[in-house]
Amino acid sequence: MALTLYSFWAATAPYRVRIGLALKGLDFDIVPVDLRAGDQHGEAYRARNPQGLAPALETDSGDLLTQSLAILEWLEETYPAPALLPPDALGRARVRAIAAIVACDIHPLNNLRVHQALQDLGVSREGVNTWSARWVSDGFDALEAMVLRHGRGFAYGDAPTLADCLLIPQVYAAARYDLDMNRWPALKAVADHAAGHPAFEAAHPRNQPGAPRP
Amino acid sequence: MALTLYSFWAATAPYRVRIGLALKGLDFDIVPVDLRAGDQHGEAYRARNPQGLAPALETDSGDLLTQSLAILEWLEETYPAPALLPPDALGRARVRAIAAIVACDIHPLNNLRVHQALQDLGVSREGVNTWSARWVSDGFDALEAMVLRHGRGFAYGDAPTLADCLLIPQVYAAARYDLDMNRWPALKAVADHAAGHPAFEAAHPRNQPGAPRP
Repeated sequence: MALTLYSFWAATAPYRVRIGLALKGLDFDIVPVDLRAGDQHGEAYRARNPQGLAPALETDSGDLLTQSLAILEWLEETYPAPALLPPDALGRARVRAIAAIVACDIHPLNNLRVHQALQDLGVSREGVNTWSARWVSDGFDALEAMVLRHGRGFAYGDAPTLADCLLIPQVYAAARYDLDMNRWPALKAVADHAAGHPAFEAAHPRNQPGAPRP
Repeated sequence: MALTLYSFWAATAPYRVRIGLALKGLDFDIVPVDLRAGDQHGEAYRARNPQGLAPALETDSGDLLTQSLAILEWLEETYPAPALLPPDALGRARVRAIAAIVACDIHPLNNLRVHQALQDLGVSREGVNTWSARWVSDGFDALEAMVLRHGRGFAYGDAPTLADCLLIPQVYAAARYDLDMNRWPALKAVADHAAGHPAFEAAHPRNQPGAPRP
């Protein structure tokens, strides 16, 4: 039995897990969940994942795991090589802090359900864009300082870690808000470097089922 | 040299780390950072923590750790007993998923800086409350299902875990939005149970420097 990822090509949270799976060299099946069409609210999906969010990962024992950070930590514990966390506790704390800035301080404020909620409150499309650009910019400022200090090619050190699994999808999403990545040269350098890595290429939205043909 | 926590009595993210430290039985000093007065934007604090958020933990080697989830994982790795994560990878994934629902799906949408940003967009105080209640309710619905399935006194099993470090502060914060916790009986039972535990009592906002006297 293989691993099965419930994934949507354009969403950044499943993208994180796709990178982790690809870096570990794991075989997995993808079941597309079209978040824009509302597939996640359907009975079939809710029966599997009551929160109705993607990603979810079905393990080879048939257990369904949710929440991208929890799934990535499970991958790291279950398939330790190649490691996505450094061996020392301080390094692991740095990598997890970079991941948490994306997962807790940037992304939750800029996803589809939040944009819809803002529009429900009467916020204009322009207001929603200003809102998104603000949180991404604040978060990128914090990440730039950390990557400048700890990165050497990738976000932490010279090999991909959990930090890159979170950072690269967020850089991809930032393009939606017309943000100039030249404001964050260290992050841009990591994104350019990762673009040449086969695992990041395999996980990219454009290479997923459901993505628009070029 | 002792551990030093940069903490604000009323904020839920430092509260999580206080619970973790107390559960581990660790001695630590507290430096209050008054988030409502803007202490986190001052030069002295920014020099230590460029993101200007609390909590931050200064380790006994003088390193400054940020992001509550990363700090709690560091505590678990550095002071393994008593454990805040179960021994099996599946159990750890469940506990981390509960923690992530609070840290990624609820709290980021309901903190001081987000409420201020909503007001800047012209959203009324009533609109802000509706917004907050919505995200807390959605998240609590997801948590209720998980705790009902996995909890036995605490959120996962019969001993406190990382899941309780995140859940209990979020239940505390929910009182601000006049939410009736009877809608989530499993979460309410865990919160009532935790209230009788000395580590949760020691970490409670009312017992912190800067808290209003009763």
